[in-house]
Amino acid sequence: MGKVTCDIGISVDGFVAGPNQRREEPLGDGGERLHRWMFEQPEANAAAIEKITSAGAFIMGRNMFASGRGDWDPDWTGWWGEEPPYHAPVFVLTHYEREPVPMKGGTTFSFVTDGAESALARARRAAGEADVAIAGGAQTVNQYLAAGVIDELRLHVAPIVLGAGERLFEDVGDLALEPVEVSHTDLVTHVTYRIGR
Amino acid sequence: MGKVTCDIGISVDGFVAGPNQRREEPLGDGGERLHRWMFEQPEANAAAIEKITSAGAFIMGRNMFASGRGDWDPDWTGWWGEEPPYHAPVFVLTHYEREPVPMKGGTTFSFVTDGAESALARARRAAGEADVAIAGGAQTVNQYLAAGVIDELRLHVAPIVLGAGERLFEDVGDLALEPVEVSHTDLVTHVTYRIGR
Repeated sequence: MGKVTCDIGISVDGFVAGPNQRREEPLGDGGERLHRWMFEQPEANAAAIEKITSAGAFIMGRNMFASGRGDWDPDWTGWWGEEPPYHAPVFVLTHYEREPVPMKGGTTFSFVTDGAESALARARRAAGEADVAIAGGAQTVNQYLAAGVIDELRLHVAPIVLGAGERLFEDVGDLALEPVEVSHTDLVTHVTYRIGR
Repeated sequence: MGKVTCDIGISVDGFVAGPNQRREEPLGDGGERLHRWMFEQPEANAAAIEKITSAGAFIMGRNMFASGRGDWDPDWTGWWGEEPPYHAPVFVLTHYEREPVPMKGGTTFSFVTDGAESALARARRAAGEADVAIAGGAQTVNQYLAAGVIDELRLHVAPIVLGAGERLFEDVGDLALEPVEVSHTDLVTHVTYRIGR
């Protein structure tokens, strides 16, 4: 069985999305600045980027899948175009039953209506020996952190102050974190934490 | 003229002190865990520790100087014993006039009642060519961050979740931060940010 991992972009003041998330700004005001390092420095950050999509299955919240769109929209297939970067099964936490949506390149969005634990069990089966990645957003990551099932948390800290938005680490209780790897460019600091049980 | 620097310990969820700061727990509930790396791994973190007290003058808020004690207490000379680790002039922001208090080893506490800008001017004069360090606590650091006068912010991120307490980066506005150095042990991640004007 692989690890459960989580990669998430965060501001120095602890926000993983800015305020006022909506259709035109799914990451909220200023939130797209969290990910400048990915788009402007893909080579310098190649190792970190490669890890983000290396898992054998992914779990994401309905807010990440359909922020500002509504996850009830039967035509909505996410923000990532025809060929999403996951290339693996993606389990979307939602309240709406829906048939799986296969995309180009091996990504299939499956919709899980019976909760986070069930989604993790399905993702583990789909991943086999590979890792399961909790892809976001904040509420979903916090839920799995609070449940104590994430083994490795990889924070990508953008050197920006968002001032408001959605916070990581809210209501997660105490965590036995240990920093095991750090690196940086001028647009990001990567910090990998191992989480004990 | 030297730089204005700031070293501060912070939890992964952004708190520089826990809740319920009081005489017996000046850093609040759980707050002493922010500094385990200093006391348990002084050798492994020697470079970071040396920098913290290398400035030519220091500024601290009344809360750091006298949290839970009251900065009006004429007998109170801080938390650091007879020979504080500063070995330099320390300017304490307060509302109470008081004569300077010379301590062993070169530390002198001077009390500044006319505001943060005046304290910085006095500290710069005292430091000469050396750096001025903003020593804390959160409100004082946030005040100088908001004023745009800190050149180098050195965060010492403890791998703990405090859940509540005093936050860094509150009401500081946007900052032009650039990570320039990172390192870690299992008890801390050191991240140095340069701050543009």
